[in-house]
Amino acid sequence: MSQPMDPFAQLPLRDNLRGLKPYGAPQLDVVNMLNVNENTHPLPDVVRDTIAADVREAAAGLNRYPDREFTELRERLAQYLGHNLTAADIWAGNGSNEVLQHILQAFGGPGRSAMGFPPTYSMYPLLAAGTDTEYIKGFRADDFELTAESAAAQVTEAQPNVVFLCSPNNPTGTALGLDVIEAVYEAGAASNAMVIVDEAYAEFSQVGTQSALTLLEGRERLIVSRTMSKAFALAGARLGYMAAAPAVADAMRLVRLPYHLSAVTQATANAALKHVDALLANVEDIKMQRDRIVDELKRMGLHPASSDSNFVFFGGLEDPAHVWQELLNRGVLIRDVGIPGHLRVTAGTEAETTAFLTSLEEILNESAKS
Amino acid sequence: MSQPMDPFAQLPLRDNLRGLKPYGAPQLDVVNMLNVNENTHPLPDVVRDTIAADVREAAAGLNRYPDREFTELRERLAQYLGHNLTAADIWAGNGSNEVLQHILQAFGGPGRSAMGFPPTYSMYPLLAAGTDTEYIKGFRADDFELTAESAAAQVTEAQPNVVFLCSPNNPTGTALGLDVIEAVYEAGAASNAMVIVDEAYAEFSQVGTQSALTLLEGRERLIVSRTMSKAFALAGARLGYMAAAPAVADAMRLVRLPYHLSAVTQATANAALKHVDALLANVEDIKMQRDRIVDELKRMGLHPASSDSNFVFFGGLEDPAHVWQELLNRGVLIRDVGIPGHLRVTAGTEAETTAFLTSLEEILNESAKS
Repeated sequence: MSQPMDPFAQLPLRDNLRGLKPYGAPQLDVVNMLNVNENTHPLPDVVRDTIAADVREAAAGLNRYPDREFTELRERLAQYLGHNLTAADIWAGNGSNEVLQHILQAFGGPGRSAMGFPPTYSMYPLLAAGTDTEYIKGFRADDFELTAESAAAQVTEAQPNVVFLCSPNNPTGTALGLDVIEAVYEAGAASNAMVIVDEAYAEFSQVGTQSALTLLEGRERLIVSRTMSKAFALAGARLGYMAAAPAVADAMRLVRLPYHLSAVTQATANAALKHVDALLANVEDIKMQRDRIVDELKRMGLHPASSDSNFVFFGGLEDPAHVWQELLNRGVLIRDVGIPGHLRVTAGTEAETTAFLTSLEEILNESAKS
Repeated sequence: MSQPMDPFAQLPLRDNLRGLKPYGAPQLDVVNMLNVNENTHPLPDVVRDTIAADVREAAAGLNRYPDREFTELRERLAQYLGHNLTAADIWAGNGSNEVLQHILQAFGGPGRSAMGFPPTYSMYPLLAAGTDTEYIKGFRADDFELTAESAAAQVTEAQPNVVFLCSPNNPTGTALGLDVIEAVYEAGAASNAMVIVDEAYAEFSQVGTQSALTLLEGRERLIVSRTMSKAFALAGARLGYMAAAPAVADAMRLVRLPYHLSAVTQATANAALKHVDALLANVEDIKMQRDRIVDELKRMGLHPASSDSNFVFFGGLEDPAHVWQELLNRGVLIRDVGIPGHLRVTAGTEAETTAFLTSLEEILNESAKS
């Protein structure tokens, strides 16, 4: 008997899911995993110790439901962000994807639309589909830049209910100027659009790049989302959060599942927030490696984009699929995001970065010879 | 300046959310908290120790995304459930609410319907609303019983896409006979309905009550959902799961957020599953207190429902709101589920159960005198 073509043929799956495949980068076991923009620095021992101790403490009450309001965590996150934010301005979820899903559940949904500017974070259209929100694809210039004028004109034209601005943008790595965010916010007034600035990588910004947190005051439709996955090296703990007006956080309370943040998650995130300095020290290391990658790629004749993140998007490749495979053959896994001539690499430790750069140069030299 | 009536007046909240309040039982700080059917026995020390050690181990890799497939956890859950289930039959989420949400995202949604039989778990209509699934209210007999004949006739009439059968039912506490589940499954064939048997409290069943797990073989539209919140005393860790045909679990992979189960959640649940015997010993204690409550309430002239769960639903009260408040005044918090003449109490430790029974008898005696 041959395998049926559609494993869901017998099941009453929703029509808009038929033919889809689950999202996900391959989880391969490779020496140098530089494909999903993780922080490749393990947690410092002192952070691990605090997490273990605090989770043991939390385990004494694990038979009870967790604090539905995760008050301590919201207080710590507000304090970390600064900008006069308080716990009332903060919301959190199991990864920033869940926070974005909450936003779409509250402000998107059937008959509503969300707009993004590809190439950008690949989860936006999937989150829109999962909440039956129409996804409107904006566009960028050929160099992937998005100007205030272009973005505002596109929003005025499309009249979306929600706008995703990814800054620094994934996969291209460059932050938006505040002028772009201000212009989109103004243009969105016509459709009363919620404007999300996804700052998952904000801690890796170059000197002088400003956060959209500075724009929150007086803008009730503006949301800045963040994550502990990257700068805090906590991708495995799944803690995303946002800052916005208190009424926006209250709207999230209408759509979140009760007790969505476990006591263990709250304890883990709180423990890490007791060690901000130790964790952000690694961010400086990563930024050095990121800058090193940009410099070296230029030296190799490639075209890396300016990066405010922990990864570098680079063009100038004749056959990116070949380079990707050859890197993997050498134990270096990076990401082919499907953009012609380009690949994306995460800035790792010094050793991982060296492995990537050395292997890449080898591959380019071999290609030049053949 | 007075507070505006609608805090969301300025925000583009979806119309179907206007006027709603967030779900949730009050989180009061009371000596005897018997209101949300928690397992009031703290985790045994040996389980806490294993959780702390395993989370410390997991913390070494927290900078990386978690195993998206939570393979070890699915294997352990399959082994725990038995019935020849394997990891391919298992799915899990952050609480069984998230598992139920995944099911509705895959098989419900706009233009589709889900049916429940109130009084039943109050999250079903909220989960339906959150996924834009129409919620169809079935009905029960005056004694809250649901027969195979009645349930099947209602499903045949309503043609829902999803059916929720809560067994034992919350808030009434009684399990459904397998005949009811079989009849609903057959009746659901006409609309190709997914049938969910929500067995959150299954481990507290009376001797002789059978699990719907025994019906899974050959029924691809049947799903049995479970949780570690109750029998495993892990409400704070948020781990719900389900058993079904592998194709159903695959459908969940189309709608779940990537990496939805954190490495810390996986480590915590796996640690608890290493101590099944120690945890289930407390279940036997709780069942004794549950049976004691039923006996004592009958002696007081009240009408407790037969319970397969860790709580007792009882009628025969002239003024439940008054009894609820007087219990709270005495440091005992139970649940007024809004059904005339009735209240619901969680079976706690022996001391908590005594506090409830003693206080209740006092209140009833005072009412009789006045």
